[in-house]
Amino acid sequence: MATLSVPHHPPSPAEDAEQLRKACQGWGTDEKALIEILTHRNSEQRNQIRLAYEERYKESIIKRLESELSGEFEKAVYRWVFDPLEREAIIVNVAVKQKIDYRVIVETACVNTPDELLAVKKAYQARFKHSMEEDIATHSTGDLRKFLVGLVGTYRFNADDAVDININLAFSEAKILHDAIVDKAFHHDEIFRILTTRSKAQLNATFNKYKDEFGTSIIKNLSSKTPDEVVTAIHIAIRCFKSPQNYFAKMLRISTAKAEKDENTLTRVIVTRAEKDLKLIKNVYFKRTDVPLEQAVGKATSGDYKAFLLALIGN
Amino acid sequence: MATLSVPHHPPSPAEDAEQLRKACQGWGTDEKALIEILTHRNSEQRNQIRLAYEERYKESIIKRLESELSGEFEKAVYRWVFDPLEREAIIVNVAVKQKIDYRVIVETACVNTPDELLAVKKAYQARFKHSMEEDIATHSTGDLRKFLVGLVGTYRFNADDAVDININLAFSEAKILHDAIVDKAFHHDEIFRILTTRSKAQLNATFNKYKDEFGTSIIKNLSSKTPDEVVTAIHIAIRCFKSPQNYFAKMLRISTAKAEKDENTLTRVIVTRAEKDLKLIKNVYFKRTDVPLEQAVGKATSGDYKAFLLALIGN
Repeated sequence: MATLSVPHHPPSPAEDAEQLRKACQGWGTDEKALIEILTHRNSEQRNQIRLAYEERYKESIIKRLESELSGEFEKAVYRWVFDPLEREAIIVNVAVKQKIDYRVIVETACVNTPDELLAVKKAYQARFKHSMEEDIATHSTGDLRKFLVGLVGTYRFNADDAVDININLAFSEAKILHDAIVDKAFHHDEIFRILTTRSKAQLNATFNKYKDEFGTSIIKNLSSKTPDEVVTAIHIAIRCFKSPQNYFAKMLRISTAKAEKDENTLTRVIVTRAEKDLKLIKNVYFKRTDVPLEQAVGKATSGDYKAFLLALIGN
Repeated sequence: MATLSVPHHPPSPAEDAEQLRKACQGWGTDEKALIEILTHRNSEQRNQIRLAYEERYKESIIKRLESELSGEFEKAVYRWVFDPLEREAIIVNVAVKQKIDYRVIVETACVNTPDELLAVKKAYQARFKHSMEEDIATHSTGDLRKFLVGLVGTYRFNADDAVDININLAFSEAKILHDAIVDKAFHHDEIFRILTTRSKAQLNATFNKYKDEFGTSIIKNLSSKTPDEVVTAIHIAIRCFKSPQNYFAKMLRISTAKAEKDENTLTRVIVTRAEKDLKLIKNVYFKRTDVPLEQAVGKATSGDYKAFLLALIGN
């Protein structure tokens, strides 16, 4: 359920490379042409264009675009042209280095399937010559470290593996979570154990049991508590396990809101999801706000950046 | 540097299956024939024999052997016939369930390459319908849990990846480890962070720096401390990171010693290493003890069990 649309008979990578080159030459850049090409090619096609461009013009298209463009538009294009795995590796690396933006790390660890996460970790190692785990561990401390390294480390089940969901276990672990939340014992080892090691299917059974038994969803229960970093990280992990689409729709609501406008998050969500499930996220967004996502993004952005995002949203 | 020797022109899997069948039929089992076949086939050939046997005789060769054999011999054959990945998964599962034998878990996590460990974790999931991390976390507590889940969880670098070894980092982390050991602060978060997330190459640089700076090896420094479970687990991890061959040679010394005879360990080491590096381990063993491994194993065992192990050692 991607929003990305690709022409049935796209030009060859060499032709696309030539058009991109033209758009970058002379006085002023032809942003419209850039947007038209880049936002209508899938990741495999973009990889081939990168290779064709480099072979023909002996320079990196990424570096060229960086020097031609600027501001949020540049950042968004820079994210988009990368291979998705490398892109997520870069996003995590930036998050690790910037005062550790643990929210992005939790999101990456919990939204991706285990095999996707593993591929991102391999891309991270290849690019940064460190493992993701060691960089996260080095830049965090205490319980936040324990939680983040646990989330990133565990190789969980993939959705198509045969997992045994154990209902008794779901009940007993829902109770453990509930007791800890009631006692405000958020840093409890058992919370970390459950969230960092159980399969997503088992966790969702536990969250359902939680609601059945205690009358409120775990998310609501957590929201009413004074958040510190660890509580916020737990909160995000549970939201991502329950429904990445609902989580991302909320991120888009927050990042396009006037008061809290956050281009980093806006760009990240649209660029990383356009080829995956942005159509589903758009639907959730509309249900929750009665405003089409295009309209909200259009209001919150301007210029080439706006045109670029709207093209990816499938306007 | 395996000790396993395989004939240049082995019989077909169907022929082997037939010979095994014959060896199991009638009054009494022909253990000699079983040993002769099973200890001279590599894992791929053994897999094919299993399939050929099952197809032809509509029963599992593993179950058949279990019912024919007994004692330590049965256990050793049972370990050996499995595919190596599945075998390690079973070994870990047994270790998890038996009062948590954390030594075996540390060994598996630290001796295997990251890709091997990942393959073992996938085999574990397929067989036991739980992730290795969740089972370990469920059956352990406190700092031991933290250490074990960290060791098993991190996807480190493989040996052929380009890792940057950072000498300054090796120095500063050697100092952290040394200070913690001097202060007997073995449960320090930083020890866990370093050992569970750094690449093996980086860790070995750190251990070398440790010796250069402080005059004694980290192993010796640790050995002089009163061990609890966590210290023992740290100790084993470091030994396995430094040299699996030295570690296994020591395990063989201990498990064949009269006072501490331990067939489980003896079987595990010989069965898991025969197809990998048992020749190297034999060399280390001889250098350390002046006794050939065959002689020590011969003294410590008897009967079919002895014949089976000696055949795997390459006598």
